[in-house]
Amino acid sequence: MSGPTPTRQRRRGHDPESVLSIAVGVFNERGYDGTSMEDLARALGVTKSAIYYHVPGKEQLLARALDRALDGLFAMVADERAASGAAIERLEWVVRQSVRMLVERLPYVTLLLRVRGNSRTEQAALERRREFDRFISHLVKEAAAEGGIRADVEPLLVTRLLFGAVNSITEWYQPARGDSADDLADALLKMTFDGLRSDAA
Amino acid sequence: MSGPTPTRQRRRGHDPESVLSIAVGVFNERGYDGTSMEDLARALGVTKSAIYYHVPGKEQLLARALDRALDGLFAMVADERAASGAAIERLEWVVRQSVRMLVERLPYVTLLLRVRGNSRTEQAALERRREFDRFISHLVKEAAAEGGIRADVEPLLVTRLLFGAVNSITEWYQPARGDSADDLADALLKMTFDGLRSDAA
Repeated sequence: MSGPTPTRQRRRGHDPESVLSIAVGVFNERGYDGTSMEDLARALGVTKSAIYYHVPGKEQLLARALDRALDGLFAMVADERAASGAAIERLEWVVRQSVRMLVERLPYVTLLLRVRGNSRTEQAALERRREFDRFISHLVKEAAAEGGIRADVEPLLVTRLLFGAVNSITEWYQPARGDSADDLADALLKMTFDGLRSDAA
Repeated sequence: MSGPTPTRQRRRGHDPESVLSIAVGVFNERGYDGTSMEDLARALGVTKSAIYYHVPGKEQLLARALDRALDGLFAMVADERAASGAAIERLEWVVRQSVRMLVERLPYVTLLLRVRGNSRTEQAALERRREFDRFISHLVKEAAAEGGIRADVEPLLVTRLLFGAVNSITEWYQPARGDSADDLADALLKMTFDGLRSDAA
């Protein structure tokens, strides 16, 4: 008797993955705080009571969405290529991977970057984000100590400005325009590691 | 009979300038759409009816606040130093001035960067912002054409990433921490024009 339901749900695209993806789109458009369960039900094309079949609540969706972004960052941190070799090369690899991850998981990272700590879920996400920032900051300091990057810039400012450029991608990137993640990463790395001046190249 | 009022208003800090400054603080904290005239009255410490003595409405405050940021950008565009000389030097000057302006007018620029076009005031501000972006984009193209900046990066991506780093300052800058606008600009220009690699300097 319960046979047809999963099929219909799949056909209408209501597996957990698409529920999450649609919800994140609504959060980014209306703001998380401005989104009601009714808004989510409308976006999914289900009744308000049916939405509870798919998800117990808004905050659980938020937690899953933020994990999607954060797990990507921490997979990088745990990777062998972030752990051995010259620090400047590891930094370069991490920046490239960050751009790739951001493009692959664009709506999830966009949501993460807007989190301000308004709930325990948001605070936990901010704490993980700060942990990632400390990892980057440490890598920049190592690269400076090894003499790989110039000594006349403050590592903390470099970290902020470098990831300011990376994170800005969520503000202006249009996948349809045709630039791939690697195009973005190439431009960013050439600009920040080698410099824009033609005589610096 | 009307003598004491302006004195009292000055003492309580309710000249137009401080009304604007307090309102922008509230807009940035609560979001413009989430701010009511009652919130503004509370922040100013006046009754809800007294607020209309100071300002006809929320959108007028928004328009004045956005002009404060945009006028700063266009003063740069009109400056002699943005108009003559090698394009790469003009670009360098404009980036440095942008950082200074952003730090000087931090809450106004923060507000501008969050505008999404939800009203005619916001649309007009976005149009002026796009005009500024076109000016920068043109300058980057000129610098590439003159051979001042490397030819193997797409000027539009450079513009986006460069100002992505500049604008990120609104996300993390803490004036109390001690970095001056010139410290920020120096770090940013060294990183993006000369490159982080010690052998690129």
